[in-house]
This record gives sequence, structure tokens and C-alpha cells, in this order.
Amino acid sequence: MDFGINNFFDKKHKDLKIGHFQDLEHIDGLSISTVSCGLYDKKRDDLVLFYFRDGAKYASVYTQSKILSENIKWNKRIKEKKVFGLLVNTRNANALTGHDGYNSLKKISLNLSKLLSEKQITDEDNPLKIKPGNILFACTGTIGEKFPESKIISNLKYLIERIKYTQNKLIWIKAALGIMTTDTKPKLSMFECKIGGTEVKIYGIAKGSGMVYPNMATTLGFIFTDANISSSILRQILRKNIKSTFNAITCDGDTSTNDMVSIFTTSKASNKEIKSINDPKLKKFINGVEEVMLNLAKRVVSDGEGATKFVSVKCNNSKSEEEAKKVCFSIANSPLVKTAVFAEDPNWGRIAMAVGKSGVRFNIEKLKIFIGKFIIFNKGKIDKSYNEVDVREYMKNENIEITVDLSTGSKEFTAYTMDLSKKYIEINSDYRS
Amino acid sequence: MDFGINNFFDKKHKDLKIGHFQDLEHIDGLSISTVSCGLYDKKRDDLVLFYFRDGAKYASVYTQSKILSENIKWNKRIKEKKVFGLLVNTRNANALTGHDGYNSLKKISLNLSKLLSEKQITDEDNPLKIKPGNILFACTGTIGEKFPESKIISNLKYLIERIKYTQNKLIWIKAALGIMTTDTKPKLSMFECKIGGTEVKIYGIAKGSGMVYPNMATTLGFIFTDANISSSILRQILRKNIKSTFNAITCDGDTSTNDMVSIFTTSKASNKEIKSINDPKLKKFINGVEEVMLNLAKRVVSDGEGATKFVSVKCNNSKSEEEAKKVCFSIANSPLVKTAVFAEDPNWGRIAMAVGKSGVRFNIEKLKIFIGKFIIFNKGKIDKSYNEVDVREYMKNENIEITVDLSTGSKEFTAYTMDLSKKYIEINSDYRS
Repeated sequence: MDFGINNFFDKKHKDLKIGHFQDLEHIDGLSISTVSCGLYDKKRDDLVLFYFRDGAKYASVYTQSKILSENIKWNKRIKEKKVFGLLVNTRNANALTGHDGYNSLKKISLNLSKLLSEKQITDEDNPLKIKPGNILFACTGTIGEKFPESKIISNLKYLIERIKYTQNKLIWIKAALGIMTTDTKPKLSMFECKIGGTEVKIYGIAKGSGMVYPNMATTLGFIFTDANISSSILRQILRKNIKSTFNAITCDGDTSTNDMVSIFTTSKASNKEIKSINDPKLKKFINGVEEVMLNLAKRVVSDGEGATKFVSVKCNNSKSEEEAKKVCFSIANSPLVKTAVFAEDPNWGRIAMAVGKSGVRFNIEKLKIFIGKFIIFNKGKIDKSYNEVDVREYMKNENIEITVDLSTGSKEFTAYTMDLSKKYIEINSDYRS
Repeated sequence: MDFGINNFFDKKHKDLKIGHFQDLEHIDGLSISTVSCGLYDKKRDDLVLFYFRDGAKYASVYTQSKILSENIKWNKRIKEKKVFGLLVNTRNANALTGHDGYNSLKKISLNLSKLLSEKQITDEDNPLKIKPGNILFACTGTIGEKFPESKIISNLKYLIERIKYTQNKLIWIKAALGIMTTDTKPKLSMFECKIGGTEVKIYGIAKGSGMVYPNMATTLGFIFTDANISSSILRQILRKNIKSTFNAITCDGDTSTNDMVSIFTTSKASNKEIKSINDPKLKKFINGVEEVMLNLAKRVVSDGEGATKFVSVKCNNSKSEEEAKKVCFSIANSPLVKTAVFAEDPNWGRIAMAVGKSGVRFNIEKLKIFIGKFIIFNKGKIDKSYNEVDVREYMKNENIEITVDLSTGSKEFTAYTMDLSKKYIEINSDYRS
């Protein structure tokens, strides 16, 4: 399995502590600041501002739930092409809060844009006027509770005060920590490459870790770059990569009202602007964005609520990618498969059950089921080579691979999930208290 | 909520012990015997025979999984109109066991039909010849393990020896215990009514309690009657009732390869044979079958793996029953909703999340969400009357009702499920050990 980026994720999965992340550094044109508004009982940062002093081009994908949080509604209505601020709060999702929740965002954006415009006058030679419509919001936390408008507004001035123009690894970690809810680890990833001889940066942070299931951009993921490319190309790259990354993960089969993955560019790199996504000079950059997104998506799963194992579920030789995806998610969302993985039990019958309930057609005589490299089911029955002792040993690994070969075509899909442990129940029974 | 049959289920839910079941008695023409073949490590009955000495008309619905267990394949191929034996084993599902598994059933049916034919010669004035094709099989347990053919065959003679022609409540409880896997309680239900002046009986037993999700007959459910009606009417009654009973429950969203619900009649009651399902004389009988099936289905859920609460999820005023069902199951299968119920936390935001991810269209300004009788979400926001303290108190009940009013039409559906507790993880991590 390739975890990309020097495989550090794979190597260091066991002790994926703060210090083991790559060091994200400065991206010209981007400032980050964090603050605690007291949204949680315990003291922790809960409000994070990403400030683009010359504005940023961006592209976003949002949840496909029929219920949208108020901030997703806000973001979808934005007409301005450039964003100057992305404000992220945790603890409160601002979902099903009705007009009150939306009005809170109006007020916050008014305040924040005013403060940022004042900062422009102080700091910049050619100060820009920043409007409420230049602010994007990401909210995550409990649904249906009154949005803590005044706590946020009264802390905006501290956020502004803390803006520094040079970023270092610590502020990136603070940002990644500040957007967390039930996550136990911050999620950061980076990639650097060249576009036509010019070095560009691709930095990303994300959060999980409940209500994680595709159908769109899952959870919150923010990618930042300085590459000089158009919004249209950004949008195409995001859509191209979302399918195999954030939309390929599931923790619990639940879909949030707040999901959002965005990519921003300050365009500060001196590469000549690229006009087409097919320009060969863009190839490494596109791969780089995919690596960062996949790495973040995998981090979300591996830190899924209560996770003790990271599971890759591959379905290959299917008639269509759609069918392969159905099979993958039928397995990856099955509580019986996930509890078996937690128990380190090679109960492959549950995998077969999940293949059967997916509704996808296949010939059982040609179906193959693998756990790791071990072929288990083959030609309509347990393979002769199958030795439960070996597979039971394999199940002790932290990274488990399940592969289903349908033998109905040549397409494939890979989904990522984690096991289902008692800890999941604990976390979700305690979340609000 | 109406639990039917004198509401005894509702009243005695707390201590639903063996003694609290109604007493199922004798049905003319049906004999039951049970035995332990040693399929489990601990001593318990694991093989149950239902023997119809003059044959029985029957109707069955089976799993719609694309992977069928070998016994479901066997049953579907049966051409004989009358069944003489239904043999149920636990511990081994005989699924994905290939030709070997199927051949085991061939051998067992040969042996069993021979032994039953010999018994006919000993016991009956006009002995009947019983063929392998007169035997139905129900298997439940682990998928993919070698079917314990010889253990079963060597115990058939003991099953036959134990056949008694008069049944009592104890043998019914033994049968209900003998078909259990991870169930903690046997599941029995009964109803008696008249068809055109003649008393008839409707007795049923069922088992859960993992891999329970509709898409067909869920889990194992067997209904026995003595009513003199045709196979065709039996089939119509079964199909009519399955939708609102066994297909309305979910424990974990997983679908078994072995699901089977059957209804058998010995036709021993002296009512004049009914020719049409629309005959008014049949009305009470049809309702009776539905009551028994619904009661059993609810028992399966309330004993779902790790269940501490029984949850009814109703969606009303929907455009179609199909849409209401989608909303109900999106809620009933959501691990986040189910863990909130376990925590006795009125986290209605998770209910809203599940409504949103169902994909069904509605106007959020007209959506209503209730927990119990408490209206929570109304007119696009939290209802003014909402008081979390009251609803938190309500969540302490064992029976929780969730209602979603879509205001898009006049159809409805109710699904039944239970909460998701740590015990579920324990059971499913230990199942094979």
C-alpha cells in the first residue's frame, strides 16, 4: 500500500504523534491565527482564521445531504471570486439553526471584514476593502444548538491581533488542532513540486472523525497552495481528486450536513499562469494535490472514532467503477465486518455477506476474496491453500487489506475505513457531555 | 404504540423472561423435537425438527442477498407442494460452503426422509412415503465453515425418537431456544381466532439477532397454523404482511445470506376451505398472522445484539411509502442516532442528519421532528416549546419513538430498531470464540 509522501504515514502509523508530521512552513500570502472563544468547557483553541492578505482564488465541494448547515448555505451563495478569510469554528455545526444561525454568520462576516479592512489600512501599501462576501465559513460540532455568535464576535479582535505574516510548523499544528472535534490527532500533509521550473507548495489540513461517509466532500479538508493557476483549474483538480480520496473513506456511514473540502491559492508563486488542466507542466502538481488529499483522507479514517486499525477495501475486476464502489462500501460500512476486524478475527464470511447484500451481480464460482495476500474464497468455496492460523496472524496488523475480485470486468475502486470498537460507542455516547 | 396481543410485550418488556410468553399449545398435525448435536462447545439444543405427519402446505420468503446459503438454494429448488419436515440447525449457516455444503443437505434429507417414512409405517394407518424433496432446511450461524454433516446425520435418529404427537408450551420454548444463535431470549407469539365459526391457531417462533436488516424476510421466522386454506392464499398473506413486520426491522443494517420466513398449515381445522384472500371470513385470520409476525419481528429487534432500548421510527406525510421507508431506515441504521439513544441523549441533530442523508426531498421549513410526543424541530428551527430537560427525561424510557413529518404527502412507514451499545461490539468481537 502506498501512503505517498515518503510513506511516512505508513512507517509511523504506530506513533502518529505531532512530531511525526512533516513540517508545513510559510506560504506567501497566507496567515493563520487561532484563539479560544470558550466554546468548549475545557480551554482549547476553537476558532481558526486563514487570512489571505491579497485574496485567494479557491474551489470547494460541499456535502450532498438534503440538509445543509447555515455556513454551507452561506458559502454556496458567495458571488465574490476571491476569498480573504476562511473562519473555522468547532463545537457548533450551525446546522438546523434556521435564520438565526444564518444571521449570525452575516454579523460575524460584517465584523470580520471590517476588522480585516482596518488591518489592510494599517499594514498594506495598497489597502484593499474586504467585504462580508469575501469571507467563507466552516463550522463543525453539534447540530441544532444555538450558534455562539457573541462569543465568536467578541474574540475576532484577538484573532486579528495574532496574525503574523510568516507561518511556521507550530502555527500549522495549532490550526490543525483548533479545527478538531472528536479527533485525537491533528491531520496535516504537504507536497512540494515544480510547475515549469518554479517551486510550488501544497499544504493541507483536515479533520474527522464522526459522520464520515462520502457522497461528497467528507469532513473538513483545506488545501493551500501558492501555485499561479486559475479558479477553473483549481475546481477541476479538486473534482478530479475528490472521488478517490475524501469520497473514498467511511468511518460510520453517516453523512454530515457540514462537509466541505476546499483548495485555495494565493497565486504568489512566479510560475507562468497555466491555462489548461491538460498542460503537461501541471501533471506533478495535480498528482501532488491528490497525494495530499489522499494522505489527509487516510489520516481521517485512521483517526476515525475509536479506530484501532486502518482498513483498505479494494474491489477489482468489476463491470463498472460504480459497482466496485458499491461492493467496497457495503463491506466498509458493515458493522459486522468492522467488529470482526476489531477482534482480529478473519471472519471472511461477513465479508462475503456484505458482498452479497451490495446488490451487485456476479458469478459466485468466479468470485475471489482475499485478506491481505491470502486468497480465502475461490471457485465457489474456501481455497485449498487457506490456513486460518496464518490469516489470524495477519489480522494482528494495524493495516488490513481486504480485496474482492468480482471477475465481471476490468474496473476497480478502493475504499478506506477503520474497525468498530467499544471506544466508538463511548465517544458517541459522551460527545455532548 | 400497539404491541398487539394484549400488549403483554409492552407491559412486560422489562422482564421478558421465558415465563412471560403466552403458552403455545398443540397444533394438530405438527410435532416438534429438539436435540443437541454438539455443534456448540457448551451443551445446548442446536437441531430442531418440525414434523408434519400428514404434510403441510406452506409459503416462504427468502433473503434477497446475491449470495444464498446452500439451504436457501435447496429450499428454492423444492418442487413438492407439501412439506413433511423443517429441519433447523444453528452454529453453521451452510453459506459459501459450495457443492460440499449442498451435498450435505442432500445426504441429510435422504436420511431424514427415510427415517420419517419408517416412522409413518410404524405409526400411521395409511403410511405415506416421504421424499428428500419434502424436507425444508433452515441454517443459521457462522458463514463459510464446513457444514457439520455427520454430527447432524448421526443425531437424526434421536430427533425421531423424541417425536411426540401432542405438543405443549415446554416443547415450543425448547424449539425457540434451539434455533437461537446470539439471541438472549427465545421468541414466541400466538393468536387464536375463528374462520367461519371454526377456531384456528396461529403460532410463531423466530430468532435474531445479528445481520438483521430487511430487503426480504429477515432472520428466521416460522408461523404454524391449522387453518384450512390453500398454499396460494398462504403465500399472499405472507407477502402482504412481510413488508410491515420482518421487513420493517433493522438491528445493524447487515443482511444475512440465510434469511427465511415461512408459514405452514397442517389444514387440520375443520373450517370450509377458503378460496379467495378477499373472503371476509379470512379477515381476522389475516390480521392474526400480521400480529404474530409483527410481535415476533419486534421481539427480534428488542433482543437485537446488545440492545438496551427498543426504538420505533416513524416517517409520516411523505410523498410515497418508499420515501418514508428511506427516511426511517436512514435514521434506524445510523450508528450516531443509535449511540445517542444508548446514551439517553436527545441529540436530535443526529436524527436531522440522517433525514438529510436519506436523499429524500422535502422543504426544511415544513419538516417536523418529534421524540416521543415532544415536537423539537418545526418551521425551520427548534420549536419554542422544546425543553431539553423533558426530552432527556423521556429518553430514559425503554421504548423510544422518533417521528419525522415530511409534509410532502400522505404516506407513511414505521421501522423498528434498537440502540447501539458497547455490548454489540463485545458480542460481535466474540461471536466465534
